[in-house]
Amino acid sequence: MNLPKSNSLRAVLFIFTMLSATSAMAQQVAIAIHGGAGTITRAKLTEAQEQQYRSTLTKAVQAGYTLLKEGKPGLDAVTESIRILENSPLFNAGYGAVYTYDGRHELDASIMHGGKMNAGAVSGVTTIKNPIDAARLVMEKSVHVMLSGEGAESFARLHSIPVVENSSFDTPFRYEALQQAKQRIERDRNASIDLRAVDEKFGTVGAVVLDAEGNLVAGTSTGGMTAKRYGRIGDSPIIGAGTYAANDACAVSATGHGEFFIRYHVAADICARVKYSNMTINDAAGSVIHEVLKPIGGDGGVIAIDSKGNIAMPFNTEGMYRASVDSNGKLTVAIYK
Amino acid sequence: MNLPKSNSLRAVLFIFTMLSATSAMAQQVAIAIHGGAGTITRAKLTEAQEQQYRSTLTKAVQAGYTLLKEGKPGLDAVTESIRILENSPLFNAGYGAVYTYDGRHELDASIMHGGKMNAGAVSGVTTIKNPIDAARLVMEKSVHVMLSGEGAESFARLHSIPVVENSSFDTPFRYEALQQAKQRIERDRNASIDLRAVDEKFGTVGAVVLDAEGNLVAGTSTGGMTAKRYGRIGDSPIIGAGTYAANDACAVSATGHGEFFIRYHVAADICARVKYSNMTINDAAGSVIHEVLKPIGGDGGVIAIDSKGNIAMPFNTEGMYRASVDSNGKLTVAIYK
Repeated sequence: MNLPKSNSLRAVLFIFTMLSATSAMAQQVAIAIHGGAGTITRAKLTEAQEQQYRSTLTKAVQAGYTLLKEGKPGLDAVTESIRILENSPLFNAGYGAVYTYDGRHELDASIMHGGKMNAGAVSGVTTIKNPIDAARLVMEKSVHVMLSGEGAESFARLHSIPVVENSSFDTPFRYEALQQAKQRIERDRNASIDLRAVDEKFGTVGAVVLDAEGNLVAGTSTGGMTAKRYGRIGDSPIIGAGTYAANDACAVSATGHGEFFIRYHVAADICARVKYSNMTINDAAGSVIHEVLKPIGGDGGVIAIDSKGNIAMPFNTEGMYRASVDSNGKLTVAIYK
Repeated sequence: MNLPKSNSLRAVLFIFTMLSATSAMAQQVAIAIHGGAGTITRAKLTEAQEQQYRSTLTKAVQAGYTLLKEGKPGLDAVTESIRILENSPLFNAGYGAVYTYDGRHELDASIMHGGKMNAGAVSGVTTIKNPIDAARLVMEKSVHVMLSGEGAESFARLHSIPVVENSSFDTPFRYEALQQAKQRIERDRNASIDLRAVDEKFGTVGAVVLDAEGNLVAGTSTGGMTAKRYGRIGDSPIIGAGTYAANDACAVSATGHGEFFIRYHVAADICARVKYSNMTINDAAGSVIHEVLKPIGGDGGVIAIDSKGNIAMPFNTEGMYRASVDSNGKLTVAIYK
């Protein structure tokens, strides 16, 4: 069909185009990130350390926010923010990941797109520089959701992902933590099983965003638990536990004592409360963290965002490294309660 | 404190004891099991084959039900029923598991107790005779929920679990399926990535029960997907996806195209619909299988049970091997729609 090229139609088309553009421009974007929760108190951090954390959190959240403001996909914002946290030795993900009992690093990550309802995850990878990129690769380049161990490495290498030596994730601080953990495990031998949660800080990093197209995206990356053994998988690579996103509900990234977060499928439960019980994101996330997890010793926290860009960052520990830029462009960076 | 041993107190104690016993006896028990869903039609099974399936399903469901009627824990009933299915070559779990691309067997299993809200899972184990027992071991003997690969094997061996050669899971029927799958993968090389869902039947086994103490328990075990590669993990060992149980909602075991079941965290979503939307177990399970999964190609089914012992066994494929004994003791064994 040939459209009549009358001036009036042109005018209508112009107005329509402008309205669409305005609507796209008016679409608000927002982002929240975390760098782990735990016994983080003012007494434990020097002023210089605190400054380092604040500075890296700010850099990571602003990098993601900048992409979102440019109208880039939420997936780009989530991976960009998480890569910055993975590349920093301050957080337990990528460089700076904790050590396994055997003195190596086994990394987990996952990502989910709430519009496509698609997801990707890797567990137990040892040489992938940025595990969050491998998780995205699994989502975008395979028919699978979760790949593990050497198989996941092979798949990522097929797609030319940057790889590094496992030792490149080493940091003296984490090595010292492993020695302390092993001593504690040794002391604890009388316990029924020497698989104890020895870490006082559940360092995991994550990001949740609302992008300019209205998509909610969540991602999480971690080095797991200090001195972990037996191929232990925590909540971070488990879709529904450590990470979840659904445009009709919310996007969540969790950090904490992973076993509790799996048993109570925390990320998906928060979204279920939003979707089925019409709870606000604040009430949904808060109730799971404070009323479900806290009483049973499920230490940790989450960052969560809904389809309006409302952000909640509840935690039941002494601190959680966190930052956000809300839908009004307001930056928040915080560590303690 | 010394209790006064008066006759009247004895009488009160006797009545109290009898009431407790009556109440325990009156507690209804129920069980449902599945042996996989897929393109299972009358035309594809000979009468003799159908008889074999029906006979093994009957044996497995009755074994679990007998334990439940004796007042045994739901965990015992779930593991007993699943062990029978794992030990049968008819189902894709344990003996009779499908082959990986490399011609081996990698088995996954998980279990969850809805009263304790505790769970255990293993993924990618290769020598454990009954993976469901390893999942239970992880739940009961470790502080972890999920162990993977060689680490999971080591943990299970520490606890003297029966192990076998990987080749003991071999069956000629599954070997032939692998050859066909590899030919199809070869033909499909033009596809962006040769990670295709090649299986026409999603053989996985599972059980859900309501025990005499009112606990809901769910378990699932699988050999995964024929010709799987790259350490692929499906929904079966993922708590919230393939398996979930919560006494205040329901217990679910799933079978189907695992990737969809992870993305839509199917087992936990069914329980969320029961808990937050007050849906019946029938409506909750049915809506997820038929309204959420079917339109997007998420083939499969679930067995689900609620705290009253109501059972739902919906599937959106041509058939699902299934059996149940409801709270009135009525046995159902079925394969087709």
